[in-house]
Amino acid sequence: MIHKILVANRGEIAVRVIRACRDLHITSVAIYTRPDKSCLHVRIASEAYEVGEHPMKGYLDPHKIVEVAKQCGADAIHPGYGFLSENYEFAKIVEEAGLIFIGPKADVIHKMGNKNIARYLMKKNGIPVVPGTEKLNNESIENIKKYARQIGYPVILKASGGGGGRGIREVHKEEDLEGLLQDCKREALAFFNNDEVFMEKLIISPRHIEFQILGDNYGNIIHLLERDCSIQRRHQKIIEIAPSPTVSENLRKTMGVVAVAAAKAVGYTNVGTVEFLLDDYNNFYFMEMNTRIQVEHGITEEITGVDLIVRQIRIAAGEILDLEQSDIKAQGFAIEARIVAEDAAKNFTPALGKVTGYYPALGPSVRVDSHLYKDYNIPPFYDSLLAKLMVRATSFDLAVNKLERALEEFSIEGVTTTIPLLLAVSKSREFRRGFFDTSYTDKNMEVLVKEMQKYKDKKNKFKNEDQILNVITEAIERFEKDNR
Amino acid sequence: MIHKILVANRGEIAVRVIRACRDLHITSVAIYTRPDKSCLHVRIASEAYEVGEHPMKGYLDPHKIVEVAKQCGADAIHPGYGFLSENYEFAKIVEEAGLIFIGPKADVIHKMGNKNIARYLMKKNGIPVVPGTEKLNNESIENIKKYARQIGYPVILKASGGGGGRGIREVHKEEDLEGLLQDCKREALAFFNNDEVFMEKLIISPRHIEFQILGDNYGNIIHLLERDCSIQRRHQKIIEIAPSPTVSENLRKTMGVVAVAAAKAVGYTNVGTVEFLLDDYNNFYFMEMNTRIQVEHGITEEITGVDLIVRQIRIAAGEILDLEQSDIKAQGFAIEARIVAEDAAKNFTPALGKVTGYYPALGPSVRVDSHLYKDYNIPPFYDSLLAKLMVRATSFDLAVNKLERALEEFSIEGVTTTIPLLLAVSKSREFRRGFFDTSYTDKNMEVLVKEMQKYKDKKNKFKNEDQILNVITEAIERFEKDNR
Repeated sequence: MIHKILVANRGEIAVRVIRACRDLHITSVAIYTRPDKSCLHVRIASEAYEVGEHPMKGYLDPHKIVEVAKQCGADAIHPGYGFLSENYEFAKIVEEAGLIFIGPKADVIHKMGNKNIARYLMKKNGIPVVPGTEKLNNESIENIKKYARQIGYPVILKASGGGGGRGIREVHKEEDLEGLLQDCKREALAFFNNDEVFMEKLIISPRHIEFQILGDNYGNIIHLLERDCSIQRRHQKIIEIAPSPTVSENLRKTMGVVAVAAAKAVGYTNVGTVEFLLDDYNNFYFMEMNTRIQVEHGITEEITGVDLIVRQIRIAAGEILDLEQSDIKAQGFAIEARIVAEDAAKNFTPALGKVTGYYPALGPSVRVDSHLYKDYNIPPFYDSLLAKLMVRATSFDLAVNKLERALEEFSIEGVTTTIPLLLAVSKSREFRRGFFDTSYTDKNMEVLVKEMQKYKDKKNKFKNEDQILNVITEAIERFEKDNR
Repeated sequence: MIHKILVANRGEIAVRVIRACRDLHITSVAIYTRPDKSCLHVRIASEAYEVGEHPMKGYLDPHKIVEVAKQCGADAIHPGYGFLSENYEFAKIVEEAGLIFIGPKADVIHKMGNKNIARYLMKKNGIPVVPGTEKLNNESIENIKKYARQIGYPVILKASGGGGGRGIREVHKEEDLEGLLQDCKREALAFFNNDEVFMEKLIISPRHIEFQILGDNYGNIIHLLERDCSIQRRHQKIIEIAPSPTVSENLRKTMGVVAVAAAKAVGYTNVGTVEFLLDDYNNFYFMEMNTRIQVEHGITEEITGVDLIVRQIRIAAGEILDLEQSDIKAQGFAIEARIVAEDAAKNFTPALGKVTGYYPALGPSVRVDSHLYKDYNIPPFYDSLLAKLMVRATSFDLAVNKLERALEEFSIEGVTTTIPLLLAVSKSREFRRGFFDTSYTDKNMEVLVKEMQKYKDKKNKFKNEDQILNVITEAIERFEKDNR
């Protein structure tokens, strides 16, 4: 059994994992760097230790983290997402220190973390992959051009070590290839310390469909249905839906079998996500596997009733998976909207500031996972995610209504957020009808901007209580006048 | 179809109903008396109208409310709970004005609103009732004493028009009977404008088990399982659980059939609750039927996935019930804790004040239904309920852990609340093991008070950020010292 878990992360996911520990009566340990000392994850953990003055380094220092874990008597480490979560060396250091790493084995993280190796392994095991090449780094530009012609333009260049939408370049014609290749390598080196890139056929406007995987240490693996993450902007997910409102029951079955086969092919354990691209003809291609808990895991929990963080912990502690594939049934639909500190109207520039007022959406069918509180200062060092708003309902249509309701109630003052954008999406016909793929935001930006303006006008109208009272008083006067 | 609903209530239930309207894209109309003008229900409704300066009168004036509804073009009225919700004359006035009353028919409210008539009707239809008398008002004290001896002491005197724990007196010996009878009549007259009382055998320390009823206008009636509301203090519910952790599947089946029979016996429509007392030998007795939505309806929604407010509206609009009894299955357990503005340590005196800080519990498995926001001034005129905290989990044990977690996170500053008491209950062995009946708080008050003190000490320790930082800094120093 696991008695004490160190959470090697910050922000909402640290809060999420600590809440799961509390639910299981497991002692939780927070770590924080100096600027994070008053963060919510520090406040709600059973214990908390500083890991240095520098805002980032402490969260990225495997040895320091393991040292804290050993000192405070933790028997396991949960990496969250981001930071060291997909760093196989960290997993190895944790294991070698005699602690439990709550995630898959280090060698599986290694294999699946390199997109090129993952591609190769999948192809070998009969999993459909997008037509493409092996790594290009030792190839001449002439050969690379030849491959591109064979695959057929447009193509996409991808960093083997990439993720989070970084290290990706679309190439639409041969004369752009060489320049974009250099660009891609540079970004790959800067972000992932590895300039290895490969090439794939660009699937035009696909849907992004990913399957949640859950497996124990004894070879039992199931999937927990899919999430539709097609609503993106520049490869950054904005809104996710579980299950996909446009995937048929037959397609779901087929893709699910393939997703489990992909996980089994690499001896996968714990939770993970197999991401597919789905084209207009319902052809699907393995894109990558994320060997960690995903930001959007909550909507899978909402429709399946399975607590994924609790399962991560129990499986890491050696428990046999007591769920079979036939136990997993979707209860309606769940939608997640990522509320981010960015100004969508100003080309998504990051927003900073102090949260001067905070009223999260509440009430039936609403879940908010967030590290925010009033007076929180949004630091410039980290991911800009402020809150994950989730709603669930018996139908997709009703879920969209609930999303709309919750977004209209959600209020974060003092900082610019993407709430107006999310509201604009939830009010768009294309979204409600399921007419969307990864090109949705590009195709609809004009309509979205107009809708966002409407919301802002309305918000300004109700900016403070006095103004609300004026509006109400006017309404009463009108009413009383009509009534005379 | 219903297009516009006037919500004839305030507080959390008005907010709850307005949220349901928003989910259904139905226009919502709030009413408010002058002191309530900046309330949350006023802010989130599509429209809002004042119904007078006096804090209470407007909420209790059937004609005024119907007038507002007609003026603003509402086609239906939702009464919430409390106020006019169980006033059959109000239902009649609404119907006569050509509007839809969202609730059962006026004559059913009338019959079930008089506890003595309800008792008679149930007995006639073979529903088990507690041994007792008809109304006592025209009987001599000698006869009343004779009845009490026949029933056997202890007995309980009850106001026919009573509710909410008022108009009730326990009588343990004959010499107290006459005095308590006068007492009971006086309270009944003051609270319900009707001094009719009757007598029942007092069931010692029963469990309070109630069944949620749902019926359409065409005779289709089902139940949505039971709630265990045994955790009470002076007949006021504190914590409710759905389903009951101690009712067996067989007993549930039997009681459910009886509850539906009770509703059918009076031609019940819309939602309602049949309350039973359950004794140590699993004998159960009809206590009363509440002909409205119940405060604790949310936990039934959490375990069944059925939105009761949405169902109320759809049934009132004439929809045929598309659920059968076999569709209703409990998904795990849900618990509600009522957070009330009272000082449990000072004999539950009502607390007033301004909410200077508000952080509702968030995260997975948590639902908060509340009208609170930062800077809300708690008015002295109304019910002291501040928020309903609900949690759900796959097992009762896990649900108790989640309740504990959520209560520890929940923070309302500036006003004394029952959070420490609720936390004390959630930490008590008796509660977790299901060893409780309606005598729980009386029997455990000493332990609960001790536990509450612990919580207060802990809260004081973490009162403000600086102090948190001190605690953390100390911990770091200890750690670094140990580490050298």
